Amino acid sequence: MAGVPEAGSAEDRLIAHYFRPLAKHPGAFALTDDAAAIAPPAGCDVVLKTDGIIAGVHFFPDDPPDTVGMKALRVNLSDLAAKAATPLGFLLTLALPSDIGDAWLAPFARGLAADASLFGCPLLGGDTDRTPGPITISIAVLGAVPHGRMLRRYGAQPGDRLIVTGTIGDAALGLMLRRQPHSGERWQLMQDQRDELHRRYLVPQPRTAIADLLGSHASSAMDVSDGLVGDLAKLCRVSRVNAVIETARVPLSQPARVALASEPALIEPILTGGDDYEILASVPRSQIAALLEGARARGVAITEVGEVCTGEGELRVLDQAGQPLAFARLSFSHF
Amino acid sequence: MAGVPEAGSAEDRLIAHYFRPLAKHPGAFALTDDAAAIAPPAGCDVVLKTDGIIAGVHFFPDDPPDTVGMKALRVNLSDLAAKAATPLGFLLTLALPSDIGDAWLAPFARGLAADASLFGCPLLGGDTDRTPGPITISIAVLGAVPHGRMLRRYGAQPGDRLIVTGTIGDAALGLMLRRQPHSGERWQLMQDQRDELHRRYLVPQPRTAIADLLGSHASSAMDVSDGLVGDLAKLCRVSRVNAVIETARVPLSQPARVALASEPALIEPILTGGDDYEILASVPRSQIAALLEGARARGVAITEVGEVCTGEGELRVLDQAGQPLAFARLSFSHF
Repeated sequence: MAGVPEAGSAEDRLIAHYFRPLAKHPGAFALTDDAAAIAPPAGCDVVLKTDGIIAGVHFFPDDPPDTVGMKALRVNLSDLAAKAATPLGFLLTLALPSDIGDAWLAPFARGLAADASLFGCPLLGGDTDRTPGPITISIAVLGAVPHGRMLRRYGAQPGDRLIVTGTIGDAALGLMLRRQPHSGERWQLMQDQRDELHRRYLVPQPRTAIADLLGSHASSAMDVSDGLVGDLAKLCRVSRVNAVIETARVPLSQPARVALASEPALIEPILTGGDDYEILASVPRSQIAALLEGARARGVAITEVGEVCTGEGELRVLDQAGQPLAFARLSFSHF
Repeated sequence: MAGVPEAGSAEDRLIAHYFRPLAKHPGAFALTDDAAAIAPPAGCDVVLKTDGIIAGVHFFPDDPPDTVGMKALRVNLSDLAAKAATPLGFLLTLALPSDIGDAWLAPFARGLAADASLFGCPLLGGDTDRTPGPITISIAVLGAVPHGRMLRRYGAQPGDRLIVTGTIGDAALGLMLRRQPHSGERWQLMQDQRDELHRRYLVPQPRTAIADLLGSHASSAMDVSDGLVGDLAKLCRVSRVNAVIETARVPLSQPARVALASEPALIEPILTGGDDYEILASVPRSQIAALLEGARARGVAITEVGEVCTGEGELRVLDQAGQPLAFARLSFSHF
């Protein structure tokens, strides 16, 4: 006799306690099976994205665990939005050091649960392991988009306007403040302004609210995760076009404007730093008005920052006076 | 001027060189976009599974890299097969220590490419990062199954026969040999027999060939990844039934039979060790003949090992003489 079956391993109990409440999709079978099954909406493609974050690489080990959970999901939701896709659900792979227990897991799961609910993106399944390395969180997110209508990096046409959502550079400045808190004084920022920038680094705002509008009006799009200039260069490379950005048009938050006024060299991290998780899109001139109006109705700020033009390989970033700016590097890379 | 766009970061070059060749699905856009888009077959659900493997936890850092790539994909394909699903493609998240270069990546990608091709499961997208921790590989696999027909752990009925594919216990013995090579002498195994067991540990054989047959004939199923006895206990718990396994019927490879004859106590790791990646299923008596015949035609061995019965909580494992066996633990856990 093999004895009474165990109520479950430590992993089973962890999953049941922290993650089962997030698995509200019927196809997740309350995480009691080996796999999940979902029926995509009729006439839709399934859009797939995976992005991982690692303690000490993409987040600080002492970042609030609830914001780590939120960031892990949101960086993926940001991609879905940029691809014009609506969230269907996500898979979670978690590798945890042995010293990670309830004190970290409880708020992590709470942050993740809040966002799974807020963005209508239930947990479908996952895998949990112990690791001798740092906390490693990998999420694969699934979305739905009308068949053949995933918005791509390919598709920008000369003459299209370039737009971004929200404000640019806050997260890069927030990361600089996190690393060198005294910068805040040099930049003449009040405490609440520093907090706002740091918060933007910790918790990005995926633009899921306008995903379908982008699908209707944009010719190409991507989310800005590695810096506006570098990411635009990537989009141009795939679309085989060139582009101009007018720095004066790039939307900045109030704290970023104050910091930039104190230290003009911050224009470089603002334009090339990572972790914005705003959307960059090319939009035909005929579609701009409809996109702006639709986004305004949904409370998402959209700003024209430049234009697509012919040619390849020579992205131009113009300063306030219309003169070209040069940067040491175009974008941020964790690799 | 931002200068000529870089041809790509180190990550971009790594992806282009090693992983683009695996991304043959048109919806992967040759890995030039942020996400992939697939159109599931009409009338099908998408089955989702994610499983990760970590160096020093799930594989040895000096395991041949091609087998690490194969194992990473195969452990996920094994789940798809047990759920009656056909592979559609996979997402790969790779976290690499800084000292991992071409010498490891080239054979890793080669093994992964061979299996992506062999099992018709193309790479759809992924994410690559550097980590201060060990090599961490997370794969999320997608499969298709006719709507509502995913085979589950739920569904086993009293009177159903229990079957397993292939042979049981080889990988557990292979792992013991890997850890204590001298065991091979005590078990009176020739070198080629030791190699066979070790190979079974390194490279599992997902039973994708009979996924649809299982869907037609089985009442419940799961893959055996944490040991036959413990995994059967899990299936019984979800199906709210009990079961009997007759040890004498459990299919063993020739090396496993030799080892067991030398050391009868090996029956415990054989039945409770992990990494079999065979399929355990319950099959109504009326369906057994058709399943056996179909599997035989496809070259997959299927063996009846016991039966589902009423009750809960008292899984019975009978020895050669029909007497109950007791084990120290029911299953293996990496957690």
